[in-house]
Amino acid sequence: MSKLSTAARRLVLGRPFRSDAMGHTLLPKRIALPVFASDALSSVAYAPEEIFLVLSVAGLSAYTMAPWIGVAVAAVMLVVIASYRQNVHAYPSGGGDYEVVTTNLGPTAGLTVASALLVDYVLTVAVSMASAMSNIGSAVPFIAQHKVLFAVAAILLLASLNLRGIRESGTAFAIPTYAFMIGMYLMVGWGLFQIFVLGDHLQAETAGFTVKSEHGDVLGFAMVFLVARAFSSGCAALTGVEAISNGVPAFKKPKSRNAATTLLLLGAIAVSLFMGIIVLAKETGAKVVDSVDQLVGAPQGYHPKTLIAQLADAVFHGFPIGLYLIAGVTALILVLAANTAFNGFPVLGSILAQDRYLPRQLHTRGDRLAFSNGILFLAFAAIAFVVAFRAEVTALIQLYIVGVFVSFTLSQIGMVRHWTRLLRIETDATQRRRMYRSRIINAIGLLCTGAVLIVVVVTKFRAGAWIAILAMGALFGLMKLIHRHYATVSSELEARAAEQGDVVLPSRNHAIVLVSNLHLPTKRALAYARATRPDVLEAITVNVDDEEAHQLVHKWEVSDVTVPLKVIASPYREITRPILSYVQRIIKDSPRTVVTVFIPEYVVGHWWEQVLHNQSALRLKGRLLFEPNVMVTSVPWQLSSSERLKVVDEQPAPGDARRGFLS
Amino acid sequence: MSKLSTAARRLVLGRPFRSDAMGHTLLPKRIALPVFASDALSSVAYAPEEIFLVLSVAGLSAYTMAPWIGVAVAAVMLVVIASYRQNVHAYPSGGGDYEVVTTNLGPTAGLTVASALLVDYVLTVAVSMASAMSNIGSAVPFIAQHKVLFAVAAILLLASLNLRGIRESGTAFAIPTYAFMIGMYLMVGWGLFQIFVLGDHLQAETAGFTVKSEHGDVLGFAMVFLVARAFSSGCAALTGVEAISNGVPAFKKPKSRNAATTLLLLGAIAVSLFMGIIVLAKETGAKVVDSVDQLVGAPQGYHPKTLIAQLADAVFHGFPIGLYLIAGVTALILVLAANTAFNGFPVLGSILAQDRYLPRQLHTRGDRLAFSNGILFLAFAAIAFVVAFRAEVTALIQLYIVGVFVSFTLSQIGMVRHWTRLLRIETDATQRRRMYRSRIINAIGLLCTGAVLIVVVVTKFRAGAWIAILAMGALFGLMKLIHRHYATVSSELEARAAEQGDVVLPSRNHAIVLVSNLHLPTKRALAYARATRPDVLEAITVNVDDEEAHQLVHKWEVSDVTVPLKVIASPYREITRPILSYVQRIIKDSPRTVVTVFIPEYVVGHWWEQVLHNQSALRLKGRLLFEPNVMVTSVPWQLSSSERLKVVDEQPAPGDARRGFLS
Repeated sequence: MSKLSTAARRLVLGRPFRSDAMGHTLLPKRIALPVFASDALSSVAYAPEEIFLVLSVAGLSAYTMAPWIGVAVAAVMLVVIASYRQNVHAYPSGGGDYEVVTTNLGPTAGLTVASALLVDYVLTVAVSMASAMSNIGSAVPFIAQHKVLFAVAAILLLASLNLRGIRESGTAFAIPTYAFMIGMYLMVGWGLFQIFVLGDHLQAETAGFTVKSEHGDVLGFAMVFLVARAFSSGCAALTGVEAISNGVPAFKKPKSRNAATTLLLLGAIAVSLFMGIIVLAKETGAKVVDSVDQLVGAPQGYHPKTLIAQLADAVFHGFPIGLYLIAGVTALILVLAANTAFNGFPVLGSILAQDRYLPRQLHTRGDRLAFSNGILFLAFAAIAFVVAFRAEVTALIQLYIVGVFVSFTLSQIGMVRHWTRLLRIETDATQRRRMYRSRIINAIGLLCTGAVLIVVVVTKFRAGAWIAILAMGALFGLMKLIHRHYATVSSELEARAAEQGDVVLPSRNHAIVLVSNLHLPTKRALAYARATRPDVLEAITVNVDDEEAHQLVHKWEVSDVTVPLKVIASPYREITRPILSYVQRIIKDSPRTVVTVFIPEYVVGHWWEQVLHNQSALRLKGRLLFEPNVMVTSVPWQLSSSERLKVVDEQPAPGDARRGFLS
Repeated sequence: MSKLSTAARRLVLGRPFRSDAMGHTLLPKRIALPVFASDALSSVAYAPEEIFLVLSVAGLSAYTMAPWIGVAVAAVMLVVIASYRQNVHAYPSGGGDYEVVTTNLGPTAGLTVASALLVDYVLTVAVSMASAMSNIGSAVPFIAQHKVLFAVAAILLLASLNLRGIRESGTAFAIPTYAFMIGMYLMVGWGLFQIFVLGDHLQAETAGFTVKSEHGDVLGFAMVFLVARAFSSGCAALTGVEAISNGVPAFKKPKSRNAATTLLLLGAIAVSLFMGIIVLAKETGAKVVDSVDQLVGAPQGYHPKTLIAQLADAVFHGFPIGLYLIAGVTALILVLAANTAFNGFPVLGSILAQDRYLPRQLHTRGDRLAFSNGILFLAFAAIAFVVAFRAEVTALIQLYIVGVFVSFTLSQIGMVRHWTRLLRIETDATQRRRMYRSRIINAIGLLCTGAVLIVVVVTKFRAGAWIAILAMGALFGLMKLIHRHYATVSSELEARAAEQGDVVLPSRNHAIVLVSNLHLPTKRALAYARATRPDVLEAITVNVDDEEAHQLVHKWEVSDVTVPLKVIASPYREITRPILSYVQRIIKDSPRTVVTVFIPEYVVGHWWEQVLHNQSALRLKGRLLFEPNVMVTSVPWQLSSSERLKVVDEQPAPGDARRGFLS
């Protein structure tokens, strides 16, 4: 900014335009953790369950693989977290994967990441809400019976809250997140304590049933495929890990270090809960199946609970409220996770708009309409998925995480390049050593995430991942087209500039005031038009009704208005065309004249008043703009009803907390 | 116009703005008849049938009443036609019932007539299309089975034709109308000739069945009610008679006399066909029933034809194509009748807009959007009725004609008053005699139509007329509210004028050019702004992105632009609020300054380009208009894509023919 203020002819105004109480506060780690953790932690609610569920296809015997798959997922998660700690240090600006990839691998790769992330935001909402409803449904059967309906309603509710603008506070994030963490640790801890210390024989309600294979014996390659697929589904636990890398600027200083520490903390919590749940599930003999038919021994009409609910039921067997509490906090953090998508989606949109991949105006924050459109798009896309897949987490999860791993993998490639580039110019030995270390970590990250991406695409493609990939492709194409349009316009302007040279100063200013009546708005328009000191000033009216025209002429003659009034005949009772022809004639007669058309306009406070006023003026204005050498000036007349709209809304924008705006 | 052209300082331009071939041609009677007759004649297709159908409730014996009811309806029709011949002479301006009633009974009565007519236009479409589909359905069973679907599709087709603009030609009206007339006269004439001259024993296909009463014996008061109701339904034959009174200006001179003659001709044709059909139906023993169950002796799965189709079948028994031809021309004239509603609805709307009962801009003809809205409203309202009543003419007809008779009755009251008023000042004996005669005719008309209105309301209220009356009330209330709003605005302006006196001339003009880049559109805006010779001229830009702002400042400094550039800080990446605050500050510092904000705007040729450009400008403009002492000037920059929208559409308007515009 210092450079700007030196030039004497320029004025830099301070930051005066935020009258509300919301300020930019930097987040301490204890608040940053819940703000960024909900997305990553909430996946603990469905990722372990999905592992068991996929394995159940091969019958009960396959369950023995679950802990090993869990260990694999946990290992990948630790690698990814280690990798992203490097990202956080290298790119503290908050651009996240999109920035890393665009900088190091070019715009096409960056746009791929962006498309992938946009699709995954939609699926985060769909999966989280579906899982939230399944979990509450385990405690309240009525909700389970109308799961789709409730999930859709919850998405609409969340969207409308975000449309109105939620004032984000640290507490709002901290309470559900810490409640979930405490609840989960209590459940896992108390459960394992009963089993391994007290030696109790804890039994899930499904422990007595057996699981029969869906397709007979699963052997050889099919078994490998199944295990790979279970691993893919389990990798859903990794979603949300990248969130912190987008939020580094919101941390207290030292920003990068605090962000890296928070990331590590988040990883430790996620891994411990994830493994704890798998072990507990195994010890209590909980069964999760795709369809009830597979449960041998289950009574007629038995409706299986979610894994979390089964475990809560078993652990707090003497304390039935435990189930309700666990189901409640689980649903709560899942809703919070869905909400992070509502925050992240418009933020990513604004970054893409800055790079002209989306309409420019999305770039300016505080642009309500831009945020609203993003929120509505996200909500309706998520609802479409929820309805299409009947709010079944298992079905939705087939589409999920492709995007996340595309972005993980490309980001790690970008980071490896980043370090290689830096190493080329760095001479300091300590720095070089650190960079080598980082590059190795990111390379391992790349190997891991790349391998997972391949596994995910191979095992899930036919089951639904193709839909997500198709959606990414469509978004990618659309954004490319938008980008190309802006480029075309830009080159059109340059070509025109090269052709015409500079703009010629108009030699004459011919002002026309449109008149339908001689009242105050007209008089003000005449006075304002006169203040612009045009070379010619005249009032014109279109005669759509002989009697009215006569009255106006008479009123004009007896008034003290000195501006001449011209009446334009319009035998077909039209307005636009006669005026247009008149203006065209002026310009034809003297091509270096600029015509300024003054249109008195009512400013009103209700939409229906807008329908009752100004419509002809609006139409005319739209048409006049197509004429070269014409300017259209609106001279507003504020009707008293307009007062009610004068207060500019001071609503907070979604995602404020992630950028350090807290109330 | 002569008065206007005398004032030297005014210029009246001729009528130069109609480049297409459509001219104002006055209609000779032979063309005027088909243009205005379709509505009135088409009701012959369902009115006689409805009389038989209502009577069938009381069983076959009640059918003997049909000819007498027919005579009563025909008598009322002749009285109404005689009355409207007076209207045509007294009000040759084409304002129709709305004008007659407003002039003589005041605006509230006029608005009642308008509401009634608007509702009846909707029902004309619904009833005509339902009847058209029943008639074609009698020849093509597939259409009868999907009557609702076909009726809806036909309404949509008609609406889209009118939206595109049908170029109305005399032939387009003449062919279906004369074809219907010829077809009907052939059928009735040949049928009666066979029966009464050749002595053939013509039998309708239902002649052999008997009709059983729906509710046992109908006796006493119930029978009187039934006959009254049959008469009410038969009065549907009278709809459309008033059409000519709206179209007098389109006739060749002597306008009123030619219109009156055409009206008489129309009446004679309608009455003769109506009575002919009733007599033929009676002689051929045709039966029409509400439900097939009433038909004793009908084979299983028998699907009754319409009355017209039964008669055509019987009359042309050796010539089966006759049935198809008659069903075809009947459907055709019914569609034409529906089309008259599409013409009349926007015309009435424009008259109501002139009197400020509807949004003002509907007043100007050639306003495509206004016509479009009217057409869409009419189409969707008609579709709603068609779907709600499953395209059953019998059900729809219960709602119909209440509006017509409200308007008939009020119009006749108005006419009686009209003559009384004239008689008060007229001294010439011949004139007075003529006026007395006219007053007597209109008084008889009043008695007749008033009586019919009472009968219609009493017999049909519970069967559906209440819906029509409710709709009229709603429209009446809405138009009252709109009128009151315009009155409020008008008095607000007067009060402000009385309070402030005249408009104060601004002492200073402070011009601001909004800038986001230094390209041609910006340079043009700067040049134009300079042409308005403001007291202060400055360019301002909002810093939503540090790097971009720096680049712009640099470009500005090295360019030859001499206008100073101010950079406004916007830490929250907003555009509207910082500019607004800046403008507010200028006005606060010097209240007699007028601020002109110049906004460079791209003019584009596709809607999606509009989405990609100008959105921030549009938002800002909308918000700036709320500030007093601010003018907003759009400086357009036409992108090459805008060329494709430059051609103003030259479509004709619906209802052109009725106003004498024929191609």
